[in-house]
Amino acid sequence: MRDAYADQLDSIRDDLLTMTRLVETAISEATKALLDGDATIAEQVISADAQIDALRVQIEEHSFELLSLQNPVAGDLRMLVASLRMVSEFERMGDLSVHIAKIARLRVPDVAVPTEVVPTITRMAAIAEVMIAKVGHIIANSDVAAAEELEQVDEEMDRLRRQSFRELLGSDWKHGVEPAVDIALLGRYYERIADHAVSIARRVVFLVTGEQPSYLA
Amino acid sequence: MRDAYADQLDSIRDDLLTMTRLVETAISEATKALLDGDATIAEQVISADAQIDALRVQIEEHSFELLSLQNPVAGDLRMLVASLRMVSEFERMGDLSVHIAKIARLRVPDVAVPTEVVPTITRMAAIAEVMIAKVGHIIANSDVAAAEELEQVDEEMDRLRRQSFRELLGSDWKHGVEPAVDIALLGRYYERIADHAVSIARRVVFLVTGEQPSYLA
Repeated sequence: MRDAYADQLDSIRDDLLTMTRLVETAISEATKALLDGDATIAEQVISADAQIDALRVQIEEHSFELLSLQNPVAGDLRMLVASLRMVSEFERMGDLSVHIAKIARLRVPDVAVPTEVVPTITRMAAIAEVMIAKVGHIIANSDVAAAEELEQVDEEMDRLRRQSFRELLGSDWKHGVEPAVDIALLGRYYERIADHAVSIARRVVFLVTGEQPSYLA
Repeated sequence: MRDAYADQLDSIRDDLLTMTRLVETAISEATKALLDGDATIAEQVISADAQIDALRVQIEEHSFELLSLQNPVAGDLRMLVASLRMVSEFERMGDLSVHIAKIARLRVPDVAVPTEVVPTITRMAAIAEVMIAKVGHIIANSDVAAAEELEQVDEEMDRLRRQSFRELLGSDWKHGVEPAVDIALLGRYYERIADHAVSIARRVVFLVTGEQPSYLA
């Protein structure tokens, strides 16, 4: 029979997966608010962030409790410390979704993203969502190989961000300063979301193997 | 007599203080590169970041070793977990300094910051440096009161960032898209450096008191 301690470790993993789903929704809805210029959805993303923050506190308290009371060693110790660090990353991803929603809200009833940049932003958002879904899979299955694949997906994000810069700094740009600044910051926010996904995946690799990912060497 | 374990905890704190000083130098030099349009200094900041990353790995390994071998409890446990989380924040501050240095390098022999925005950027950089110095003091002295003061300094940073946005989106802006995008991103980078300083200070408060800072409640 399993003991209460093993159940508690499982419940932290379940909470991390819930946090992953909340962040995935936040990014997806923030992008919807942005591309549709929808203030109601933007507000929902902004207020729903409190849920992500609350779950962070819950996971932190729970992890600390187990660290303090159970003197975990080896794999369990690494898992609890990794959880404490991963929740900070998820919380930041939630904050970045709020930043995207706030840019959407600021420009309502207009849409912050000029038509010709919509495909680039749509693709960046899609990649961010795919990466988050993969992070959920990686956490649920301790899938080290999938963590490695994530780094390749991240490269497309970097490429798209460079492309968005070329668009807004190009001679064809007719929208002036404000949309350019919006696009530059949005590119930064999606790129950072992707970076956090990569960083979480690396923590899972460390958790499973006890080593920093070899493809980083 | 003090034992080896206590000495090892002290040495982690010393390494954190070294990391603080390296980050302080990175921000100060990146700003110098930016405002003087100095490619040599920008390159130095970019290559010196490896030192910050190496110190991060060293502190992580050392903290993990103590967590694994010493089964620390209460204050020591919190200190080690806090160290693991603080090094991530310091590493990000180093990365943000590199981003600032890269904007400087991209515009050489020009200066990325238009003359009339120089005072705002200079002030943002000065605040970031003051905040980092305070973080060093807070870590060295477990100074909870100073951590609270830091939140007030951070408010000036937020105010300055809003001001830089008013400047670049105002009708007087004559510099076009590229410098506007640079200033928007620079504002974001300095603001994030300040956010990390606040976050580290909050971790020290948690370390000392065992409670989340009360002024957050």
